[in-house]
Amino acid sequence: MEQASSAGLSNLDQQLNKRKVVDQTGPYQRTFRLDFQKTSRAVYVVGSVLKANLKRNAPPGSNYFSVKCSPRVQYRISPPPAENGLLPIPINGNTMLLITMGTASEMENDSKLSVLYYGEKTKELGKAVVHFTAVEISLDVDADRDGQVERNNPNKGSWMWGPNGHGAILLVNCDSERVYGKKLDTLSAEVTRVSDLKDMSPMMLRTRGPPKLPQGYKLAIHISQGDAETVRVYKTRSTEGVHQTLKNLFYNSFVKDYPLVLGFKNLSKEVPYPGGNAEMKFYVEGLRFPDKDFEGLITISLSLLEPSSGDFPETPIFTDKVVFRVAPWIMTPNTLNPVEVFVCSTSDNYEFLKGMRKLVEKSGYKLKICYEYMNRQDRWMQDEIEFGYIDSPHQHFPVVLDSPRDGGLQDFPYEELLGPDFGYVTRTAYNEVVSSLDSFGNLEVSPPVTVNGRNYPLGRIIIGVAFPTATEGRNMTKVVQDFLWAQKVQRPIALFSDWLVVGHVDEFMTFVPAPDKKGFRLLLASPDAAYKLFRGLQKDGHGQAKMFDGLGPGQEITVDEILSDEKLLAENNYVQSCIDWNRDVLKRELGLDDDDIIDLPILFHVIEDNRAVAYYPDMVNMIVLGKNLGIPKPFGPKVDGRCVLETEMTNLMKGLGVRCTYIDDFASYHKNLGEVHCGSNVRREPFSFKWWNLEM
Amino acid sequence: MEQASSAGLSNLDQQLNKRKVVDQTGPYQRTFRLDFQKTSRAVYVVGSVLKANLKRNAPPGSNYFSVKCSPRVQYRISPPPAENGLLPIPINGNTMLLITMGTASEMENDSKLSVLYYGEKTKELGKAVVHFTAVEISLDVDADRDGQVERNNPNKGSWMWGPNGHGAILLVNCDSERVYGKKLDTLSAEVTRVSDLKDMSPMMLRTRGPPKLPQGYKLAIHISQGDAETVRVYKTRSTEGVHQTLKNLFYNSFVKDYPLVLGFKNLSKEVPYPGGNAEMKFYVEGLRFPDKDFEGLITISLSLLEPSSGDFPETPIFTDKVVFRVAPWIMTPNTLNPVEVFVCSTSDNYEFLKGMRKLVEKSGYKLKICYEYMNRQDRWMQDEIEFGYIDSPHQHFPVVLDSPRDGGLQDFPYEELLGPDFGYVTRTAYNEVVSSLDSFGNLEVSPPVTVNGRNYPLGRIIIGVAFPTATEGRNMTKVVQDFLWAQKVQRPIALFSDWLVVGHVDEFMTFVPAPDKKGFRLLLASPDAAYKLFRGLQKDGHGQAKMFDGLGPGQEITVDEILSDEKLLAENNYVQSCIDWNRDVLKRELGLDDDDIIDLPILFHVIEDNRAVAYYPDMVNMIVLGKNLGIPKPFGPKVDGRCVLETEMTNLMKGLGVRCTYIDDFASYHKNLGEVHCGSNVRREPFSFKWWNLEM
Repeated sequence: MEQASSAGLSNLDQQLNKRKVVDQTGPYQRTFRLDFQKTSRAVYVVGSVLKANLKRNAPPGSNYFSVKCSPRVQYRISPPPAENGLLPIPINGNTMLLITMGTASEMENDSKLSVLYYGEKTKELGKAVVHFTAVEISLDVDADRDGQVERNNPNKGSWMWGPNGHGAILLVNCDSERVYGKKLDTLSAEVTRVSDLKDMSPMMLRTRGPPKLPQGYKLAIHISQGDAETVRVYKTRSTEGVHQTLKNLFYNSFVKDYPLVLGFKNLSKEVPYPGGNAEMKFYVEGLRFPDKDFEGLITISLSLLEPSSGDFPETPIFTDKVVFRVAPWIMTPNTLNPVEVFVCSTSDNYEFLKGMRKLVEKSGYKLKICYEYMNRQDRWMQDEIEFGYIDSPHQHFPVVLDSPRDGGLQDFPYEELLGPDFGYVTRTAYNEVVSSLDSFGNLEVSPPVTVNGRNYPLGRIIIGVAFPTATEGRNMTKVVQDFLWAQKVQRPIALFSDWLVVGHVDEFMTFVPAPDKKGFRLLLASPDAAYKLFRGLQKDGHGQAKMFDGLGPGQEITVDEILSDEKLLAENNYVQSCIDWNRDVLKRELGLDDDDIIDLPILFHVIEDNRAVAYYPDMVNMIVLGKNLGIPKPFGPKVDGRCVLETEMTNLMKGLGVRCTYIDDFASYHKNLGEVHCGSNVRREPFSFKWWNLEM
Repeated sequence: MEQASSAGLSNLDQQLNKRKVVDQTGPYQRTFRLDFQKTSRAVYVVGSVLKANLKRNAPPGSNYFSVKCSPRVQYRISPPPAENGLLPIPINGNTMLLITMGTASEMENDSKLSVLYYGEKTKELGKAVVHFTAVEISLDVDADRDGQVERNNPNKGSWMWGPNGHGAILLVNCDSERVYGKKLDTLSAEVTRVSDLKDMSPMMLRTRGPPKLPQGYKLAIHISQGDAETVRVYKTRSTEGVHQTLKNLFYNSFVKDYPLVLGFKNLSKEVPYPGGNAEMKFYVEGLRFPDKDFEGLITISLSLLEPSSGDFPETPIFTDKVVFRVAPWIMTPNTLNPVEVFVCSTSDNYEFLKGMRKLVEKSGYKLKICYEYMNRQDRWMQDEIEFGYIDSPHQHFPVVLDSPRDGGLQDFPYEELLGPDFGYVTRTAYNEVVSSLDSFGNLEVSPPVTVNGRNYPLGRIIIGVAFPTATEGRNMTKVVQDFLWAQKVQRPIALFSDWLVVGHVDEFMTFVPAPDKKGFRLLLASPDAAYKLFRGLQKDGHGQAKMFDGLGPGQEITVDEILSDEKLLAENNYVQSCIDWNRDVLKRELGLDDDDIIDLPILFHVIEDNRAVAYYPDMVNMIVLGKNLGIPKPFGPKVDGRCVLETEMTNLMKGLGVRCTYIDDFASYHKNLGEVHCGSNVRREPFSFKWWNLEM
């Protein structure tokens, strides 16, 4: 006994350090009852501490006690008995017995602890005997984010951002394993293809102990009511490792092999204790992206339940928990490498398609054409969808965000893009007006920036809205804005785009890669730059040079005529003031200097409701494919047979190591109030930077 | 010129340091256009920097420039001209002119800056002339939380927790200024009583400048669409200070004196420029408590709008913003001083009322009785309501949270409690089952605690729910749980209370003040403690002592009979395991040691659905009034004419400096499955600790 009460102490401490069944609140401590005049059974979870008040259930008149136990059991008396080595030990109201066991039992009830109670030192009043079964239980996830489910990570029960952070990651299973008869995987509460398991986060229940638990003890896995709509958990029918049976190898149906254990209708479910040294694999499926009412964190718990006498419900005596964060939807800026380029084929865009095909092939990427049966004459490939991706240590795939715009291209993202490892998400505007500002030409993202010491390694989302001071005006729907904000990792910036008829930020800004400074330049449309250029032409004697040369009768207009148009000047002064406001916001919110910005010579004119459109093809509305820029051919005045707008544009891009290709989109896009960027879309490679390494 | 370009630089820096129109992104910088061959007018906001690219609007062929300005204007050339002192200065594409003014103008257009452009050093090509009007504009709030609206706090545009934090505070205007025909003030978009202004946060627009702004310039105050349902802004009709007119003193209607400027239907509103050195006072009214979908932060902006030519909309050229956080609803633990005690009068509770009146009067507090016409025989004053408060540097008042329980007392909180400086809030369960767990005997709050180094100076909220492992069970409604979590400052703990028939945490726990240790003790009901006491009685020869003595025929039962009831023992073993589970959670989540907890001898018995109620009056269900405890009279077995349960209880409270008073609630409360605490409610003083000083 003396041995146990001193050596037991250091064993206990060693063991707690070694096993780390600790969260922020120290080792898992449980109030334990010792029933005198009774032999009871108890299951002990290795790493926890059982704490029994010795007086609580002692026989009346008990003044002393002594403890005996089998070798696997350690105990400590608190406060430590004063009379060292003397037995029995005096008992009072605060005398506590702390019990631990270092390793799992091999058989049920293979360990034992007895407490003898005495009135006087010699008179035995009663005896509490407990037979212990020790088990190791751990619900495990990839909390260190290395793609492997490690053993009992001490931080698995919480989530922290950053390179020194921790906490597991969950994907919204928003792709469709089926190619035909497809359906978002989140809509089926079953695993229909083994490939679907890749999109889920693995989770392990690891146990060590006797072949079975004592009668009535159970394991249960559970989630809270609040998480019920955000997550499902499946398990493998077989236990992997020592207890796998051949039977399972012959199952054909995955539905049967991976039964649903937790979901909307099942917040708690018993799981079998696998016995011995075993692990049971679970697959966790995310169902909802972070949003205004969902932070993105999900807790899954596993409890060991102790039977009660009679019909009373079981009581959980040990709970282990793991926390997941649902991966956000991430957008990809122009500085990331393209993978695929998408355009529409319409009855009138043959020339444009030819130009695009040449550019894309030259750049070495894949051109994908959406044909008329699918696009229904809707050519605005930029506007119906935005490509992004979701990422985790175990899986990543592209996810298309479908705009509530719902034009002719409405079915394209679901019917053509959604598929195995290609996800889909949308937001529906139930009580809101959907306007032109909901098209995703009005949704862009900056390259990575640092703003006053704060890093945005995934850039910042950019949307266009009405002036905050406007008493009326068009806005992006709140459901889409809320979704974008809730993703958190690319904190949005709202620009003013409602001054445009179409109202998209891509009509006055874009980003191109650069070898120096911040790795990119912001390009802004600039009427001032256009007037400067035209005035220079006039001064140099080219006032009679014609814009729109060769585009048909009545189209042409001379530089002199443009410069003498007072109305056009007034309109462009207004446009410049709108763009300058956005320029100041972008400088502030992206931490840009003036020399990070290049002004492109572009004129606008006002056609309705005091709102503007590009006067000639809007060169800033370009497609960026690595080092190749596909720029709307501006049809500017010619000097020495060369378009001065193209020359100026190409000059402005000098030093950036990019190649400018001018694509004729005049008839089929410009005349319809859009350009190259509006009529195309690019799926890009994901960032190499992992979103969970963000410091938030 | 030389003077200006060198001295101007240091002036500018001094001035930026002095004025602090800076947020995290440095001084407010604006892209400014200099139009050559034109005289223009501009309004400058003191503290901002105007930045003009000199080449952008220069006449074609400009190679040099020079600058002249009146004394109030300072400028700096960037990059600084190489040839010091030589005029004119060479111009290139990057030459920037940074313009500032140190003080506000006295007259419109009283300052001037001209830029002359030259082709060669002598040939003047054009001249840009700007007449400046400088104004000081600041939207001000109490961002340093001292109850005063300071001038232009540099941190007013963001919100930070903690004693070194910043950011203004807003109350939900959830009281009713009217006593008759009352209505929550948030339901009226008008100021009907001058007293209502106290419940709003003052906000000032402070300006300095000429008597009026140049033609077409306007000020507008605005909020975002997302904040529209959370805030209203009123203004005083008169400007205070120099421009107040006598007329306003004779207005009778406050509606007219404090017109609504911003609200659900008005996201932006022009406000008059008051002229000269003036301030305009606004009152900001919070409409919604933080909740699952509302973090609690609200931004209000003020912009200066510049006219555009023709019919074009104005452009904001300067925006100042302030951020408020809506004050959370805060609960008050038993350790805070009482103010008022509430009980119901029913047809059968005369004895109880007498006991309560004596106790409350002895304790020196006010007893408020809710009569039958209002309580409709609903005696459970604890269950329909929870008292709390809201707090800000300028105002605080009690706020009652009305439970979705809606028993006979349903109208009491709105009809009797709501009033001037007494707020009301409720949550409605639209799609959820309301159960007994929604009664607020199931909603308590701990005294201040520190848990593993984390401080909870306002304590932690405690609610009771079903076991997380239960496949079915009763819970508190999600709308109420979401509300409690969203308040953030008293992070909730969920206990297991569904093992009780009534299912309230106050049936097995309470807190009492203590002079030592953590300043309080947690009291827990303990069947083990009751059995220990009864076994001691039996052992000492008092087995024939009777419980429920004198309560009528058939009630009495001896200690021996109780101890020989095996069914009762099994039930209490189960109850003890339920309470022990809660004990372990409370220890972990409140950072308690075993000696912070006192076990009270209380037995339960199971009456339906395996759920328990107190066997004899449940002493833990007490009312705590400072140092006076009003405890249900337990009617325990008597030894030497004294109830041993009372004696034990009083002994257990020894050393805490509290006085125990036993109140007979047997017939009117205990028999109806409740006790003293269930039948009463206490409004307490607010914490002296200010919630905004929490470190989050």
